[in-house]
Amino acid sequence: MKIIVLTFLALFGIAQVFGQQASAQGDPLPSWNEGAAKGSILEFFARVTKQGGPDYVLPADRIAVFDNDGTLWIEQPLYVQGLFVLDRVRAMAPRHPEWKDTQPFKAVLENDMKTLAASGPKGIAELVTATHAGMSTEEFGRIVKDWLATARHPKYKRPYTDLVYQPMLELLAFLRANGFKTYIVSGGGVEFVRTFSEDRYGIPPEQVIGSSNMTKLEVRDGRPVLVREPEIDFINDREGKPVGINKFVGRRPIAAFGNSDGDFQMLQWVTAGVGPRFGLLVHHDDAGREYAYDHSTHVGRLDLALDEAPKQGWTVVSMKRDWKTVFPGYSREQEKQR
Amino acid sequence: MKIIVLTFLALFGIAQVFGQQASAQGDPLPSWNEGAAKGSILEFFARVTKQGGPDYVLPADRIAVFDNDGTLWIEQPLYVQGLFVLDRVRAMAPRHPEWKDTQPFKAVLENDMKTLAASGPKGIAELVTATHAGMSTEEFGRIVKDWLATARHPKYKRPYTDLVYQPMLELLAFLRANGFKTYIVSGGGVEFVRTFSEDRYGIPPEQVIGSSNMTKLEVRDGRPVLVREPEIDFINDREGKPVGINKFVGRRPIAAFGNSDGDFQMLQWVTAGVGPRFGLLVHHDDAGREYAYDHSTHVGRLDLALDEAPKQGWTVVSMKRDWKTVFPGYSREQEKQR
Repeated sequence: MKIIVLTFLALFGIAQVFGQQASAQGDPLPSWNEGAAKGSILEFFARVTKQGGPDYVLPADRIAVFDNDGTLWIEQPLYVQGLFVLDRVRAMAPRHPEWKDTQPFKAVLENDMKTLAASGPKGIAELVTATHAGMSTEEFGRIVKDWLATARHPKYKRPYTDLVYQPMLELLAFLRANGFKTYIVSGGGVEFVRTFSEDRYGIPPEQVIGSSNMTKLEVRDGRPVLVREPEIDFINDREGKPVGINKFVGRRPIAAFGNSDGDFQMLQWVTAGVGPRFGLLVHHDDAGREYAYDHSTHVGRLDLALDEAPKQGWTVVSMKRDWKTVFPGYSREQEKQR
Repeated sequence: MKIIVLTFLALFGIAQVFGQQASAQGDPLPSWNEGAAKGSILEFFARVTKQGGPDYVLPADRIAVFDNDGTLWIEQPLYVQGLFVLDRVRAMAPRHPEWKDTQPFKAVLENDMKTLAASGPKGIAELVTATHAGMSTEEFGRIVKDWLATARHPKYKRPYTDLVYQPMLELLAFLRANGFKTYIVSGGGVEFVRTFSEDRYGIPPEQVIGSSNMTKLEVRDGRPVLVREPEIDFINDREGKPVGINKFVGRRPIAAFGNSDGDFQMLQWVTAGVGPRFGLLVHHDDAGREYAYDHSTHVGRLDLALDEAPKQGWTVVSMKRDWKTVFPGYSREQEKQR
């Protein structure tokens, strides 16, 4: 319903008004093109922060949740944490001569992606365990930070932390300026995302919710530390996302941002709450500047949630149409030329 | 080491100086008697917030964690949540006629505490499951709030939320005024504590870490809700406390406050971190105004942690000696007369 009204407003150029109002006070979303998507954002957050208005939301209840992979940063050709796993296997291989003859490690070392894919969830789990467990939480954080500092994206040849979405950085800042507490709710590992969330998104570690390994208190070198165990604690994906949010935040947020079917239940649960609610999906339809994928991809599939969006009143962002810029520090011309 | 120095300072009345300095700017801890405990608190937090000082801690790292039962509010004659369980069994009994003949429910309904105790952890788990699962998280919150509004402590005849410790409320406010983020880290149920943490302690739900049931996303009455399952998700006690803190906060706090052996590992892990660290134990030694218990009690046993405190440099607070007032709104005379 909401989306129909907003499309109507956009047709008559009325959504422009919101953009212009914002612009008069300095546009808080300069990397967003004027249109229904930007209009719906500005309209909703103006409405819920308008003191005395019928939809006013108290600052304590201003909680907004964001998926990470594909919503705040790039997730193709593979989740960044997946690329980290592959690089770690390569880096650790000299200390594991047996990996040369053991699958799925052999496939990684030989760059044999077909055999790797055939190893299935069990094979992936073995790789994750080998690279994500056995060290203290502090050691793991250092390993991730060191990797992020040197690894480069295969297409853009830039650090992954450069490949965050400029329009979403502006959205995070805009929400915080309006008294919102912004959370990341990622299917990825919580201790992976926490290494860069504060620097890159302005989101402190305690506002990152994610999947996790079990940890165990041990004394190492005379000091108590938490050691990452080779056992899954929690999978923060799909129906796990509402569970994770409730566990960490203890209340239903009023706004949720995602880009794939992994975010479907989160958007559904958030927008089914009482009072004004906002749901948004980023649709990757920009093969020129980034990637184009939805119904039939493996990583970041957007199928059910995209079909459901109009019925649920969720805003769908077309990367191609709605974003003036994709990454920080790239002009539109530079992005096109890639 | 720290405690020895502070005891030395106290002997010479030097700790008084800190109190007087604070008092000159309005004493932030008026319900604390002058002495080593109050002195150690004021000294530490002045030191880590002194810009340019050698022990200065950046605001982002100012995380302080507090146990709840026995540290922030009363835990005798039984944990408040335990009393809630017993009251719930009584309130639910009309809908469960079979409980009249089924242990451990029968024991609760007949006030037969001996048989109840004999039912052991398995019996307790049955009672907890019967009273804590099957409803949505929102329904559970309402049940707890309704109970807290009407239940009265058997000795004081006051609501449990009145029986929070005034000196600790002042300490929470003092830390927050100094840029600290204050967390509750409770062995109790996270969704139980969250119902009153904001009102009573100024601590929002997302800063409460506790034990938890599994929850599951379900559609009830056409709306997606999270239903509390009859299965434990996490026990946030003893070695679970550092695990819980790391899971929720993602970094090691610099100050920890507890009162029992259930807090031992938390204090140990927190104070073993690099840089200035503060650990504090509340010792319940005030039978007149509250309760006196330590080595040999069942609820809130303080044995190992009390023996370890001097070696670890933790501050030990004597409720009798160090607290001018115990509960809000009671004068010392009123408290004595009880």
